[in-house]
Amino acid sequence: MFGHGGAKSSAACRGAVHGGDWRAMDAPPADLPLRIAPDLAELARGLFEALRTAHHDGVGITRETYGPGETAAMRRVEAVAVAAGLDCAWDAAGNLRITLPGADPGLPAAACGSHLDSVPQGGNFDGAAGVIGGLLALLGAARGARPRRTLHLLVLRGEESAWYGRPYLGSSALLGTFDPAWLDLPCLRDPGLTLRAAMRREGAEPEAVAAGRPLLDPASLSHFVELHIEQGPVMVARGVPVGLVSGIRGNHRHPSARCSGEAAHSGAVPRWLRRDAVLAAADFAMRLDASWRTLLERGEDLVMTFGIFTTDPREHAMTRVPGECRFTLEYRSESERTLDDFGLLAATEAEDVSRERRVRIALGPGVRTPPAVMDGRLLRHAQALCRGAGLPHEVLASGAGHDAAIFANAGVPAAMVFVRNENGSHNPREAMEFDDFLHGAGLLQALLLTGAEAAGR
Amino acid sequence: MFGHGGAKSSAACRGAVHGGDWRAMDAPPADLPLRIAPDLAELARGLFEALRTAHHDGVGITRETYGPGETAAMRRVEAVAVAAGLDCAWDAAGNLRITLPGADPGLPAAACGSHLDSVPQGGNFDGAAGVIGGLLALLGAARGARPRRTLHLLVLRGEESAWYGRPYLGSSALLGTFDPAWLDLPCLRDPGLTLRAAMRREGAEPEAVAAGRPLLDPASLSHFVELHIEQGPVMVARGVPVGLVSGIRGNHRHPSARCSGEAAHSGAVPRWLRRDAVLAAADFAMRLDASWRTLLERGEDLVMTFGIFTTDPREHAMTRVPGECRFTLEYRSESERTLDDFGLLAATEAEDVSRERRVRIALGPGVRTPPAVMDGRLLRHAQALCRGAGLPHEVLASGAGHDAAIFANAGVPAAMVFVRNENGSHNPREAMEFDDFLHGAGLLQALLLTGAEAAGR
Repeated sequence: MFGHGGAKSSAACRGAVHGGDWRAMDAPPADLPLRIAPDLAELARGLFEALRTAHHDGVGITRETYGPGETAAMRRVEAVAVAAGLDCAWDAAGNLRITLPGADPGLPAAACGSHLDSVPQGGNFDGAAGVIGGLLALLGAARGARPRRTLHLLVLRGEESAWYGRPYLGSSALLGTFDPAWLDLPCLRDPGLTLRAAMRREGAEPEAVAAGRPLLDPASLSHFVELHIEQGPVMVARGVPVGLVSGIRGNHRHPSARCSGEAAHSGAVPRWLRRDAVLAAADFAMRLDASWRTLLERGEDLVMTFGIFTTDPREHAMTRVPGECRFTLEYRSESERTLDDFGLLAATEAEDVSRERRVRIALGPGVRTPPAVMDGRLLRHAQALCRGAGLPHEVLASGAGHDAAIFANAGVPAAMVFVRNENGSHNPREAMEFDDFLHGAGLLQALLLTGAEAAGR
Repeated sequence: MFGHGGAKSSAACRGAVHGGDWRAMDAPPADLPLRIAPDLAELARGLFEALRTAHHDGVGITRETYGPGETAAMRRVEAVAVAAGLDCAWDAAGNLRITLPGADPGLPAAACGSHLDSVPQGGNFDGAAGVIGGLLALLGAARGARPRRTLHLLVLRGEESAWYGRPYLGSSALLGTFDPAWLDLPCLRDPGLTLRAAMRREGAEPEAVAAGRPLLDPASLSHFVELHIEQGPVMVARGVPVGLVSGIRGNHRHPSARCSGEAAHSGAVPRWLRRDAVLAAADFAMRLDASWRTLLERGEDLVMTFGIFTTDPREHAMTRVPGECRFTLEYRSESERTLDDFGLLAATEAEDVSRERRVRIALGPGVRTPPAVMDGRLLRHAQALCRGAGLPHEVLASGAGHDAAIFANAGVPAAMVFVRNENGSHNPREAMEFDDFLHGAGLLQALLLTGAEAAGR
């Protein structure tokens, strides 16, 4: 069983980051313990606490995208980096790049990073764990001989973007995929405030971002590693502290699906003359549920959700056969093919149920987000690192999107390290064990230092 | 095929009500044509039109329960009856009793009746068809030799009671089952107006009603017959103008059922860790639907409706596994045993689904209304009358409640004649063919005149 004892972990850490001749190498020693020095661990603990204190809104953590809280949190991280002698620079999108220059500036740089914005009343670890973990990696690396490659910690703006509705703002700007139209997005809290104005207020240069050129050449990076808390319950259920992400699920969404039948008197219409929208929609949901189960049994990656499912509040009644049922359908998979197959299946079942139950199931317009594949070589390398260190781990898909997907889709080999976390994310009840975080940060550091060759860069 | 030609029907009618020596008898001739005299048909047509003109609210027909419109409609019917020499009396509940005295006052009287209140923006036939049909029966009977039994047409108050929420007010008062607490019910349109005040305003005596004594001794009636439009689509679908009601379905209702699971991130939680309230509720609905089908195949009478079925609008989202789904469940049957059996089945399925899908399905408090059985001998007699007249008909259950149920449950042998009607009731699109109405009224008259012996009274 994986040990949670804080004192013991810290003692075992000591030799790991400090000692040894592996620093200027890319291949790790077989027994790399993947641990963080105790003083750095304490620094991280203090940073988490400082962020929580500074940005608690009474219910949870709120750091608005391109807001003063996000900037203040970034400046707090910058201050620690500057004090440790790391280079800091802000780009036109307001992202913060913290750099430990490598011995060989001609080599592509290894990068890690995450975000510091939150959702309203969110938790303290979503995003911040990746930033603080990356900071530990650079601080640890800075203590010894200079690594061969330059190391970057990218503190990215607006990943959640809950106030503007369009996520991955900072990483999209960084890699040149920022759509200038997003600058006109209104802030949901204050529709008089556009994203452009918020960016400008926080010191970014929206015009430069709108030009659409990458702020960092993807080819200048060997790979990108992101640490993040798991936002689902898999690792708690499986009892593993660290997860290795195989891919970030893409999704197909139908936000305005509808089953239309015919309203009727609930007592006076027999079954054979009904066109019951709820029973038909339920039938449709059950058929897809059965297919989902079958696909899982065949080893495919898939999740499916009818998040909204409702009769019409303006006309539904206990004594009326429901004439309409609106619903949303979302399904996600790491595999584009699985998404396409499931889409065909959903369309076929919608037709079959419509015919059999004399209703019309219209899935309506669909929205697609492609999956992002994590680099297979980096993944196998990460597995080897964990095995070498005796660190229990699990390979799993990420159901939520992350900045790492933007890097992967820009051609940068990417990896993600998940840290076990209870109660999901985007809520104040996020619960990450600090020891789990230290194991994840150790793995992040090792991947940052040794992943380039594994990824063929 | 049943003929719709108005002229031909009218011609064939002529001899029916006028001619013959069967008036003072209880057994009908084998060839009873069940038709209405042409001048009475015209009178009925004029009454329907007058009611429509007087009570059209711009959208549909509105005659508020214990309101001036209901009273005005009753007075219009009374005026026709008085002009024809029938006796008229108003009881303490404001019901109007129109009477053709029989030759033998010692015999229990035969009664028919229905109501003249409507739902808001309702149709012109729900209720009124039964009153006007009954008036034709008494007017027809009044033209010849005095019938042996006294005949009553009961124009009953507040059957819909859409403004007070408690139906069958007039018939309940008539038969002594009126709960005095109902007098305090507020009018939904004007909460300052109680039912008591509305009754008093329209000339009723709420104190006398509150005393709880029947205003008419059920034992003084040989039987009760109600004509009503069908409120479902069965007769249109089957192509029959007249229906004979086997029973009025009782129902079990669960107005606040709830399936509770756990909300979660739609991308990050795999199937095996979900507690999806919508899929569980859909599973429950599908299992009951399958059982419903099985029971129908076994010849049981049952309808089942999930009229309201909804995720929580305060927290549902396309990207959130739904943690809760509220629904209503109503099932109706002519058979108390079927209702009980289906209730047990629903409870078992709720438990099974809850266990299998790790949710909690709570059906919540149940409300029961017992079925009302129509008199089997009257039903068979009505079938014989139809067969004798070559009138296509169908025996079917009434899904909606009617005043006839109050009579049946008070021990008065009751029968109901349905008239084919498109588009359901309680809406301005009610569509009854006038010829169908005449066939129904002819049957009502024959049942009124000849049903007592069939019912053993």
